[in-house]
Amino acid sequence: MMNEYDLIGIDPGLKSTGYGIISIKRKKIFYKASGKITTNPNDYESERLREIFQGLNEIVIKFKPYQAVVEKIFVNVNASSTLALGQARGVAIAALAGHQIEIHELTPLEIKKSVVGTGKANKKQVQFMVKELLHLHRAPESDASDALACAIAWHNKVKFQ
Amino acid sequence: MMNEYDLIGIDPGLKSTGYGIISIKRKKIFYKASGKITTNPNDYESERLREIFQGLNEIVIKFKPYQAVVEKIFVNVNASSTLALGQARGVAIAALAGHQIEIHELTPLEIKKSVVGTGKANKKQVQFMVKELLHLHRAPESDASDALACAIAWHNKVKFQ
Repeated sequence: MMNEYDLIGIDPGLKSTGYGIISIKRKKIFYKASGKITTNPNDYESERLREIFQGLNEIVIKFKPYQAVVEKIFVNVNASSTLALGQARGVAIAALAGHQIEIHELTPLEIKKSVVGTGKANKKQVQFMVKELLHLHRAPESDASDALACAIAWHNKVKFQ
Repeated sequence: MMNEYDLIGIDPGLKSTGYGIISIKRKKIFYKASGKITTNPNDYESERLREIFQGLNEIVIKFKPYQAVVEKIFVNVNASSTLALGQARGVAIAALAGHQIEIHELTPLEIKKSVVGTGKANKKQVQFMVKELLHLHRAPESDASDALACAIAWHNKVKFQ
């Protein structure tokens, strides 16, 4: 494992895909960037997926992360939302795949347990812990926080390996 | 609409993604290429999605189709297969999205109705009609035939517009 590298976390979704980049320096984490790519529900689905792909692609080109962690999808009881999420997740993986980035995955449960200490944590608790762990003045908005939490949880998982 | 252009049809799937390219010349169709990208079920899902992305990306670079038609997914009763299909479809759309190709979609029902005349057609009937319509000596294998059928059905839909 390198001493210094950037890690991107991604929380995929058709309406909004969150991303968060942290830098790892001698096993410590530092905030680098975060945000979300939102799409317009009135646009064609293929256009929306294109926007997610292009948005993530630009972010990857800009920040050149070494590794990526993509939140695993909770298989929904609603088949059409599972499909929509699956497509958004496929697009996110494709955006990373074009740049030879190692791709890992974590479930929402693993992320919450790692960052908040309990799998039952709500969005506000995740935001609070992300703010604390990254020494930010203000918590990033929910989708960005989820993506940062994803990256932090991956770092927690591998830091003692 | 241009007088001459290439159209790629894609039948997405995690295990096998079929593709078929036809040329349209003065509203007539000609076979150009077809095949499938298969992935190994023993590999990580992200690796398999990466292979689909890179495979389609190479095909798009090689043949430079003007338009694409991606088969719509039948929302399965099995949520995890819906998710897997959704991800493969997202990856396929992303591979096209990087190249400014117009993306259209058709349902399996629309494709079968257009190519065979009935939405109840089976795979063998689709293969037979693809062989006939494209004047081939032998029918391409099932995934490639489905993808070609997808492209043919799109052409049928727009040729009188």
